[in-house]
Amino acid sequence: MYNLTKLKIKKPAHVVFEAFVDPAHIKNFWFDSSSRWEQGTTVTLRYEEYDAQIDIELIEVEVNKKIVFRWGGEGEAGNIVTISLNEMDSSRTIIEVREDGFREDDDELISILLDNKGGWVYMLTCLKGYLEFGINKLRAAIVH
Amino acid sequence: MYNLTKLKIKKPAHVVFEAFVDPAHIKNFWFDSSSRWEQGTTVTLRYEEYDAQIDIELIEVEVNKKIVFRWGGEGEAGNIVTISLNEMDSSRTIIEVREDGFREDDDELISILLDNKGGWVYMLTCLKGYLEFGINKLRAAIVH
Repeated sequence: MYNLTKLKIKKPAHVVFEAFVDPAHIKNFWFDSSSRWEQGTTVTLRYEEYDAQIDIELIEVEVNKKIVFRWGGEGEAGNIVTISLNEMDSSRTIIEVREDGFREDDDELISILLDNKGGWVYMLTCLKGYLEFGINKLRAAIVH
Repeated sequence: MYNLTKLKIKKPAHVVFEAFVDPAHIKNFWFDSSSRWEQGTTVTLRYEEYDAQIDIELIEVEVNKKIVFRWGGEGEAGNIVTISLNEMDSSRTIIEVREDGFREDDDELISILLDNKGGWVYMLTCLKGYLEFGINKLRAAIVH
């Protein structure tokens, strides 16, 4: 079971890539990150407004193309998130986020998937607002 | 079965309300609307970029507080959408969207709910971008 979300962003892939891996950028549309995202490292993400914190393990980082990380759960138990950047031309990139690992026998499966889907769509729209319009105040407004 | 999404918008309720009912506003973050939203009328919504069009039947319109409409399906078969505005103070409103009517025995239930959830989160974030920052170019970027 997985969630897949795609959004078109009017920026080249290297700009979208840097927005995730550079702590100076990612905090403007998503989490605070403890350090730059490098393959093989673990970074701590913190969402102050929701008092939420999570470690992510960066399994694969292919510059300007792909980021794969594991989060949630202990050790191998976490979900796998794959962020792929498909540059259409020098001014447009389709960003795709796929999260794998949801347990189909989970009693709360639907509710977990829905929250997860909402989170990805929200983050990607905040990313678009940040990269295309320089707005860093769209985030942290979802009410749970 | 229903989907519920809530977002905080830094505008008073009457501004958020007008953004939906006035065709001059709603097109900036969601659909083109054929006419102003009035209780008891049916309006046609069109999303040019996705070549999508739908009629909605406005069941209840309570100024600055609530909008209830039916969409999708023939006659009584459509889903019911309730948009509620909870003004926290003169500069902040929590907008809540609830869509009811999903059939639990539908084979495609999870996929329908996920698309639906993504759509509401996306629309609300575009609404926030429009009302708080005057941006009307966040919409129409989800890739299906």
